Amino acid sequence: MTDSDTSSIKTLAIAGVGLLGGSLALACKSRGLVQRVLGVGRNVERLVAAEAAGVIDGVVQQDSDLSEVDLLVVCTPVDRIAADVVHFSRQLPAQATITDVGSTKGAICRAVSDDARADAMFVGSHPIAGSDKQGWEHAQADLFVDRLCLLTPTAGTDASRTQQVARLWRAVGMRTRTCDPDEHDDRLATTSHLPHAIAAALVATLTDAQAPLIGKGFLDTTRIAGGDAAIWTPIFIENSAALLEAIDSFRLHLEDLREAIDDRDAKFLTELLTDAAERRRAIGQRDVAESAERSSDEAGGSR
Amino acid sequence: MTDSDTSSIKTLAIAGVGLLGGSLALACKSRGLVQRVLGVGRNVERLVAAEAAGVIDGVVQQDSDLSEVDLLVVCTPVDRIAADVVHFSRQLPAQATITDVGSTKGAICRAVSDDARADAMFVGSHPIAGSDKQGWEHAQADLFVDRLCLLTPTAGTDASRTQQVARLWRAVGMRTRTCDPDEHDDRLATTSHLPHAIAAALVATLTDAQAPLIGKGFLDTTRIAGGDAAIWTPIFIENSAALLEAIDSFRLHLEDLREAIDDRDAKFLTELLTDAAERRRAIGQRDVAESAERSSDEAGGSR
Repeated sequence: MTDSDTSSIKTLAIAGVGLLGGSLALACKSRGLVQRVLGVGRNVERLVAAEAAGVIDGVVQQDSDLSEVDLLVVCTPVDRIAADVVHFSRQLPAQATITDVGSTKGAICRAVSDDARADAMFVGSHPIAGSDKQGWEHAQADLFVDRLCLLTPTAGTDASRTQQVARLWRAVGMRTRTCDPDEHDDRLATTSHLPHAIAAALVATLTDAQAPLIGKGFLDTTRIAGGDAAIWTPIFIENSAALLEAIDSFRLHLEDLREAIDDRDAKFLTELLTDAAERRRAIGQRDVAESAERSSDEAGGSR
Repeated sequence: MTDSDTSSIKTLAIAGVGLLGGSLALACKSRGLVQRVLGVGRNVERLVAAEAAGVIDGVVQQDSDLSEVDLLVVCTPVDRIAADVVHFSRQLPAQATITDVGSTKGAICRAVSDDARADAMFVGSHPIAGSDKQGWEHAQADLFVDRLCLLTPTAGTDASRTQQVARLWRAVGMRTRTCDPDEHDDRLATTSHLPHAIAAALVATLTDAQAPLIGKGFLDTTRIAGGDAAIWTPIFIENSAALLEAIDSFRLHLEDLREAIDDRDAKFLTELLTDAAERRRAIGQRDVAESAERSSDEAGGSR
């Protein structure tokens, strides 16, 4: 069994077939990883359309349709994930595994661990991949390639289930790493939720008179602000404590810059901007280096 | 004569052959717009290397080399542009035109207008195009395609020179628009300088422990922070008044978001994020629409 073997998953179910769920379905189907991908959700019409478009193989219409599911991936907004995990743990066979794609993990893992059956079946995941686009219409089979997926097993999590979930994410092209749920939230507050808050505030700052003069820089800096408010509002609220800290830390750094500009202090400004440029180039290069490393691993033929 | 005719420019000179100057040189050469592109600068070794690499056709070694220049484009950092324009106005024939690529315009245009000879020869330009990369090694012949160039003629500027400069930028693929120099600075403070300040502060906020968890969102949001501090420090200082106002306006919008997060006010957060998402999608689409419009103009064969 290789580290991306998915033979334990014959039927994969996805609850919430949007951009992420749809991309996972396409990735599994295009790579032939599982026998069937079923869609589960509130809006049966949308699911039937996704099936007609070939994104999923079937639509779960009633509880009995879930009886052969080996792995369920919950792709609903973060404020609904814990309740969905508990709900589906009752519908699925006890040997099935449940994971999710939520961008917050602490509150979800705590809520799930209060329910013994759900806790035994659940392994938290956060595939760090996405798009500012919404819906399965924008799903991409290669969305996860070369990206990182964090897994947040807790004391109640069976290691074999963690491995099963990790193999799925690796099979669709991701690197995987385990992480404490609260540590996850603390770090993602700065790496993901803060940039979103900043991008939204920057878009709000732009007036109609200024808008025609934007360039590629403004567009890049604000791209993520195009993301769905229905997804991001619950993320901001679930992770509010860590996000507020991240915002406050950012404000101090912006204040340093503001003071240097106000003082027309070229020396200090040069220092701040040089540090930022060097650091930005370093993280950009590491990202490229990790992708290259992964490609060369794959070329080595471990699959 | 079409609106992108450059036949009045036989010899083009570029002072400061970096990313922008090098890209302009390549764009002119690849499109056959001028007979010769000369490089001017402090570092003759770098210019000789750019000539050897085919980016420019020749290096200006002495004042007499400038005697046949029809148009000089000053691509030095913004705090040197005005002095360079005045300096070169003495070396060039009086009928030659001088323009620049500076990201600030108010102080430059005011300083140049204090010198009668330079003022008569100069038309300010700001091609809104660039990269976080530095040096002519990263120059791209298509850097300007479908981007906007702002021209800032003043009371002393001859309309025919403005047209000559505008035709050059259109010939390398840009849309052009004229604009008051101070209005330019005021608007660019928000559309360009503020995003750079924010990106730099965001990179500074990231700790080493968080860095491995960044995704595409963080990378996009901070891409411009990789830009050269030697270019951006003078921009921040030249445009400090407008930039401070832009930073303060941004801080108020971020404060609104912060309060909504602190209050866990889902309704208000949804409103703020929905507004930002709609606005971001609108400006992204307009950018695409303007590119498409331009392509269809070109297909119409105005050249």
